[in-house]
Amino acid sequence: MAKITIIGAGAMGSAFTKPLADNGNDVRLWGTHLDDFIIDAVKAGKNHPKHNFPLPPSVKAFYHQELNLALQGTDIIIMAITSDALGDVFESIVPYLKSDMIIGSVTKGFNYNKDNKIVLLPEILSERLPTELKNSLDFVFVAGPCKAIEVLWGVPTAVTYASTNINAANKLRQLAQTNVYNINTTDDVIGTEICAAMKNAYCVGLGMAEGFPKQKDGFLHKNTKGALFTYAVAEMGILSQALGGTLGPVLGLPGIGDLELTGEAGRNRTLGEAIGTGLSASQAILKMKENDITVEGYPAIKFGYYIMKELESNHRLDSKDMPLLTGLYHILYEDASGYENIKKLVTLCTAGNNPL
Amino acid sequence: MAKITIIGAGAMGSAFTKPLADNGNDVRLWGTHLDDFIIDAVKAGKNHPKHNFPLPPSVKAFYHQELNLALQGTDIIIMAITSDALGDVFESIVPYLKSDMIIGSVTKGFNYNKDNKIVLLPEILSERLPTELKNSLDFVFVAGPCKAIEVLWGVPTAVTYASTNINAANKLRQLAQTNVYNINTTDDVIGTEICAAMKNAYCVGLGMAEGFPKQKDGFLHKNTKGALFTYAVAEMGILSQALGGTLGPVLGLPGIGDLELTGEAGRNRTLGEAIGTGLSASQAILKMKENDITVEGYPAIKFGYYIMKELESNHRLDSKDMPLLTGLYHILYEDASGYENIKKLVTLCTAGNNPL
Repeated sequence: MAKITIIGAGAMGSAFTKPLADNGNDVRLWGTHLDDFIIDAVKAGKNHPKHNFPLPPSVKAFYHQELNLALQGTDIIIMAITSDALGDVFESIVPYLKSDMIIGSVTKGFNYNKDNKIVLLPEILSERLPTELKNSLDFVFVAGPCKAIEVLWGVPTAVTYASTNINAANKLRQLAQTNVYNINTTDDVIGTEICAAMKNAYCVGLGMAEGFPKQKDGFLHKNTKGALFTYAVAEMGILSQALGGTLGPVLGLPGIGDLELTGEAGRNRTLGEAIGTGLSASQAILKMKENDITVEGYPAIKFGYYIMKELESNHRLDSKDMPLLTGLYHILYEDASGYENIKKLVTLCTAGNNPL
Repeated sequence: MAKITIIGAGAMGSAFTKPLADNGNDVRLWGTHLDDFIIDAVKAGKNHPKHNFPLPPSVKAFYHQELNLALQGTDIIIMAITSDALGDVFESIVPYLKSDMIIGSVTKGFNYNKDNKIVLLPEILSERLPTELKNSLDFVFVAGPCKAIEVLWGVPTAVTYASTNINAANKLRQLAQTNVYNINTTDDVIGTEICAAMKNAYCVGLGMAEGFPKQKDGFLHKNTKGALFTYAVAEMGILSQALGGTLGPVLGLPGIGDLELTGEAGRNRTLGEAIGTGLSASQAILKMKENDITVEGYPAIKFGYYIMKELESNHRLDSKDMPLLTGLYHILYEDASGYENIKKLVTLCTAGNNPL
């Protein structure tokens, strides 16, 4: 049992209350200034508005202005904030941090660090730590095939907790593991986070294969999707290793597992499908913006592409071994034809040296 | 250019005419005694009855009794026969074999060899070779995410050709590679064939996750499916390595790629779905038999389980590292509960040592 404060009352933060509360932890859910309507509902014992499903009754909810109260005596903090706001919100938490705390994070993606360099989220957090806490606090990152609503429903789920201090990952596992929410641990934070971020990017490509029938006489393109899926895993492996990570998470829940889940449905796939039907990326993005839909895979393709280029300039990889990401960048950011390019990419990827 | 005879005019054999004919090879399609209606249609220039789509016009079709004609002067023979009939049909081909021929095979699965031992299909073929041809003929096995009809349609596709003689695989690649039918090659026949056979088995498990909503308040189980997918890949890796293969094909098109494709739709998934809704395996199998539907994954689970047990008795693996296949066997052959067992399996798999 521990006192655990979740920062952010959106879909994933709220769902994470379920295994933690089921295990008898003292779980506090804090909402940002955008989450007031959620906190209202949870305090009133109503369904969570984003899930249309109740949180465990023992969960205590806190408004934006109650941060102090939410963090009182807490042992563990879980960051559940969108990737673009993660740094700012974490800064407001920093004054409450103490040594020996564990900071979990369910946020996934890339962002710019304070030097305006594209980095994975662990760096967004760690660069904000005061010097005296740099070596006395541990971060644990959560990844894997895990739709928030299914965690709340109690559906059998398996995720990976990654920390450079495996003991911290194991401690959080002990507090969160139930008979349906299953956790394995790894010390490969880089591999875990590259998958968490890049699976959205590659999923846009998988979505295109789902859209192709609309411009090709109704012909399904499941062969194409299977090929793209395989090469996406291979390229996540190249990126992970070039950044100093391993293949472990790529071939585990954060990579293979989450790519499978993400390819089944969702906004990344929807964007790809729109391009697959024959729209240019500009048209498809515009359409999604008009419907107020943000797609994580879209910036992830750009961020991933830039990171690949930087790694190449440092001789850590050869972008020729990553035709899929390169092609997705051309399609998504230069309006290159979806169909003709995916066709070429399958050829390029198959001719290449699959490093696995 | 080569003279190539395809043995078996079913879905995959017939579709394979497409890239071979597009490359200008002399392609002959021979039908078994069950294929007369297909050969009738092809000879008449009509649509292939199984695909409702025409074969390339240059393909020459041959009836069962025209085997001699079909094999006259041929350089390459492609076996495209169901796994249970493969050995018998190959025996009728043996008299026509000459040294330096390449024998390709698109058949996948297990069968009993002449000593009544369960083996992968390469052994079914090689044990029938006369001694004088044992070292002068090469076999090439085809695997990967490849629905036959999509090959015929010309959909971008990528497959793996495996041969213990990589030159033979490369030669067949040269004859078959087009701008949409893409091929890579490997010398790991075991890894390739274990994936080709076992992906059907594991797909039954993936199907269960698709059926669970029907017995669980409509709750999707995509998290469960993503976890099962990951562990299926891991277990195919264990089997491949225990049999003397590598991880290469497992992490490539025959493993990850074909599992992704197979999990999307098809009879293996349908069987799993039926069990997922709450039927016992006996009930689900009976229902499929009544509809005259055979499911490759059903025997593959048994064959795979027996091979695992044999490998364990030879200290080549520990079946505790393969809870998913073990659990699938219990569900499919001992009518163990689908839901309760899959739930336990996800826990067991996650707690285990993922060898990847």
